[in-house]
Amino acid sequence: MTCIVNCLPLNEEERQRFILAAGDVRQEFVVDGSSREGMNWKASIPENLRESASAIIGNVPIEQIRDCTSLEWLQTFSAGVDAYLKEGVLAPGVKVSSASGAYGLAVSEHLFAMMMALMKNLPSYRDLQREHQWSPLGRVQSPDGATVLVLGTGDIGAHFARLCKACGAHTVGVRRDAGKQVEGIDEMHAFEELDTLLGAADVIALALPSTPETRHIIDESRLRLMKSDAMVINAGRGDAIDCDALAAALHEQRISSAGLDVTDPEPLPAEHPLWNESRCLITPHVAGGTHLKQTADRIIDIALENVRRYVRGEDLLNRMR
Amino acid sequence: MTCIVNCLPLNEEERQRFILAAGDVRQEFVVDGSSREGMNWKASIPENLRESASAIIGNVPIEQIRDCTSLEWLQTFSAGVDAYLKEGVLAPGVKVSSASGAYGLAVSEHLFAMMMALMKNLPSYRDLQREHQWSPLGRVQSPDGATVLVLGTGDIGAHFARLCKACGAHTVGVRRDAGKQVEGIDEMHAFEELDTLLGAADVIALALPSTPETRHIIDESRLRLMKSDAMVINAGRGDAIDCDALAAALHEQRISSAGLDVTDPEPLPAEHPLWNESRCLITPHVAGGTHLKQTADRIIDIALENVRRYVRGEDLLNRMR
Repeated sequence: MTCIVNCLPLNEEERQRFILAAGDVRQEFVVDGSSREGMNWKASIPENLRESASAIIGNVPIEQIRDCTSLEWLQTFSAGVDAYLKEGVLAPGVKVSSASGAYGLAVSEHLFAMMMALMKNLPSYRDLQREHQWSPLGRVQSPDGATVLVLGTGDIGAHFARLCKACGAHTVGVRRDAGKQVEGIDEMHAFEELDTLLGAADVIALALPSTPETRHIIDESRLRLMKSDAMVINAGRGDAIDCDALAAALHEQRISSAGLDVTDPEPLPAEHPLWNESRCLITPHVAGGTHLKQTADRIIDIALENVRRYVRGEDLLNRMR
Repeated sequence: MTCIVNCLPLNEEERQRFILAAGDVRQEFVVDGSSREGMNWKASIPENLRESASAIIGNVPIEQIRDCTSLEWLQTFSAGVDAYLKEGVLAPGVKVSSASGAYGLAVSEHLFAMMMALMKNLPSYRDLQREHQWSPLGRVQSPDGATVLVLGTGDIGAHFARLCKACGAHTVGVRRDAGKQVEGIDEMHAFEELDTLLGAADVIALALPSTPETRHIIDESRLRLMKSDAMVINAGRGDAIDCDALAAALHEQRISSAGLDVTDPEPLPAEHPLWNESRCLITPHVAGGTHLKQTADRIIDIALENVRRYVRGEDLLNRMR
């Protein structure tokens, strides 16, 4: 017997749309809408539904998945699905589709907001505000005419680059295949050219996916290739930057500022020197969650379309396996 | 005898360009380049030059101007020239030209950076950073799909609107003459319609010039017309907002957040309640100074062009009188 177990935190209207999309197929809604505003939506399959669940919408714990012996399809809330693709987690033939594309707007805007805030000294002005101090802090920067180097030009990097370009920046992309054109990127280069590109960049923005090659791609030696007024921002994966080396570079004023939504490790330990670097702005890995209404809406849209396709036996969006 | 007294903080190359522009006309450079990075450039005419000064570049004190009996032309660093237009300050026939247009980029970017930072909770994340706390704060906002109401659509308001539009916002302008089309503004309205427009706006941005009509244009009653998730930002004149009423609206969570580069009075008194409103970001009237390289460059460009025109007897740029 076919049954879709839907773990999305939906409102009544959205629920009706999923019921319509599923047609005759049984669908169980196991989460109410009240958790919608949370950072990461939780998903869990009640024990009594595990055996009959042929489709699951939600990032359910792997140990629960193992009990779902009828499973045909898993739709995640997340863009990444690595955990479910590991050997032995899913039976052969189980399809997996992701919410890839849902997070680009939120993450790129967060990265862009960090850049704008740092360019205008807003974190330091906030520090002064707390002391009720009205004192100018000197020079600011502008995206207009700045060279912005974007490492990783997927959904997030490309949208970030378009925002920078709209503010007058010159955008330089770095990706594995430098032959690919990406809208918003003025010039594209391969990773082999990174060392040369670093010295010309006003902003170095990281939006890299999680792969072994990107670990510590920004390390002590590459930080030393940057200009003294360069800014480093990261909303991709935390370990793309050697955070100890970054703290030292900021402390010795070898670069101008940093904005990090991701760190290595996470959470950043309370005693880590980065917390106290006044030209470093830290946010706790919040760019990519469901804090933005548009992100939640897009996850729901992708899942809804895939429910339609699932019941009709059509190809799924964002098929990962 | 004609003599230009140039109070710009120039480097050697720029100085050469001014010498070239002035041709045979005597030009005295009375400021060195070391003050270039300051917030507001200071100008002063040495006593021995006051009698011969036929042209002055710089916002010199009014009491010094009175000694300049040969004066024909004053070029200010500032966009506003009100102080010099007052009765009795300048002799009849003295021309005044401003640096209007030099500040638009810097002020609009600052306003835009405040908006982006507040939308992503960056000031509050900065507060948590100071306590080494890694904790998500919940919902964020996006300019994508937001309605941004821009009060005052001159140089600053229009450029700000273009930045918002590039991020997907719908921009609504308010100006005296609603018939005028402005690039970056999707729909233009007159001030008479303001009350109706306020209730539909996600962001209310003020970039108003200094006129008697704009005093407390945002007051208690208009704050009550705004949505509970509305943001108010101001980089125009401080007294366009009733700051006591704004503090109350924030405290009672009747609006979501505020970003102020200007306040009333200035500096904001240490005991003012706005300082402690966590959803209010305050910067000390720094958007419009010469902190941005581009602003300094534009002021110099305008002055240089006007020196060329002055010595040839041509019409001046930004002529204010």
